[in-house]
Amino acid sequence: MDEPETGLTRFAFTVEFDGRPFMGWQRQNHGPSVQQAIEDAIHTVTGERVAVHAAGRTDAGVHGLAMRAHADIAKSITPFRLMGGINARLRPHPVAILACEVVPDDWHARFSCLGRSYVYRIVNRRAPLTVERGLAWQVAKPLDADAMQAAAQLLVGLHDFTTFRSAHCQSASPVKTLDRLHVAREGERVTVHADARSFLHHQVRSMVGCLTLVGSGRWSADDLRAALEVKDRAALGLNAPPDGLYFVAAHYPG
Amino acid sequence: MDEPETGLTRFAFTVEFDGRPFMGWQRQNHGPSVQQAIEDAIHTVTGERVAVHAAGRTDAGVHGLAMRAHADIAKSITPFRLMGGINARLRPHPVAILACEVVPDDWHARFSCLGRSYVYRIVNRRAPLTVERGLAWQVAKPLDADAMQAAAQLLVGLHDFTTFRSAHCQSASPVKTLDRLHVAREGERVTVHADARSFLHHQVRSMVGCLTLVGSGRWSADDLRAALEVKDRAALGLNAPPDGLYFVAAHYPG
Repeated sequence: MDEPETGLTRFAFTVEFDGRPFMGWQRQNHGPSVQQAIEDAIHTVTGERVAVHAAGRTDAGVHGLAMRAHADIAKSITPFRLMGGINARLRPHPVAILACEVVPDDWHARFSCLGRSYVYRIVNRRAPLTVERGLAWQVAKPLDADAMQAAAQLLVGLHDFTTFRSAHCQSASPVKTLDRLHVAREGERVTVHADARSFLHHQVRSMVGCLTLVGSGRWSADDLRAALEVKDRAALGLNAPPDGLYFVAAHYPG
Repeated sequence: MDEPETGLTRFAFTVEFDGRPFMGWQRQNHGPSVQQAIEDAIHTVTGERVAVHAAGRTDAGVHGLAMRAHADIAKSITPFRLMGGINARLRPHPVAILACEVVPDDWHARFSCLGRSYVYRIVNRRAPLTVERGLAWQVAKPLDADAMQAAAQLLVGLHDFTTFRSAHCQSASPVKTLDRLHVAREGERVTVHADARSFLHHQVRSMVGCLTLVGSGRWSADDLRAALEVKDRAALGLNAPPDGLYFVAAHYPG
């Protein structure tokens, strides 16, 4: 379980980030990542090269409002000072530590996590986005959010989500339990909430993309059911862009 | 009242824009403006060089969610096609026409306007902003929103707002009636709503800046009252940055 060496303290972080300038959460050779930005900031504060582990790996352009992560640090420092130091060194990256605390050595941001929550934001209007460009998905065709919500319930539960899984997905199995998929409209905004123990790569974006086909009348609910049941990525109707996707919560025991 | 020539049709627009890349609403020689972006887009659509008049002039970095404006156009075109054409030509500027309609020749976005509404967004936390950078004001010191709301009522009504007026204000008089100034907290967000027939230059930002002094305990409500009554810009405690300010509504007869 990747326990720290003697003398190390495990710190847990709650991280907010704007995904636009990053290749994604995970450290990459070919571009900036949220993980690298935080690891570099910790190095500047502590002089230590540490690995930061997160509850989930978000794609390029996907945002985080409360990603959870941890790192093991030798330096004697309070969570408050560590958080302030990291935030000062993260500039100008759009990444911020919202909370920091000491956790037991067996607490792991990824392996202890019992559930993840995402929100997907759609702005349903003809006009392009301005202040929210890159922060939501603009869909011009009118969407029937009630039809989307009804169809979404076909995806809730234990299913083989192969149709909604990226070719690059590294999960051992395409079978997952989707605990909640809720669609609601408020004015021109259509918001999708998704909760599960874990998700496949691109699963939320793929489900949201297909739900918009239902919402615009191009697909019936039966079309969505057929796409799920055929268990074939080729049956995917539409993969929603990363812009509207936010990692909003990771849930742990206790 | 700047009525159109015969053969011109007056179109009213509802405009949303991200103020970050602009010198402000009004056309400037030294940098990009929202007005110029729209006028250039109309020129591309219609071949006409027109003046776009707005309900208010926002400063550099101030945003608009529903600015109202108008222009007189000779080309025979429906509001729907005009809006679509302008939006297509506005790219890549973060400006969008949300609505467009034909209005009577004596309707004027500025002179017919009976009231303006602004919202100011504060994020009250130590951590820097990420997805909302440039879209809100981060205030680290804990703010007592109830104290701010109580003090704000001292500013409501008919007053000489000289203390809260920029040196560059072109208004004939510093005496204005503030109809509403409402402060409310929701989680880490403190939002200020301001309604008036019209505002002085920097008035909302100056009022919000001083209210945060009350909220953080540096000023009492009496200090705010004294600053108002002394009618001296030198008494201004703090001018809030443009980042958190949004023009949200213009009100017209009927």
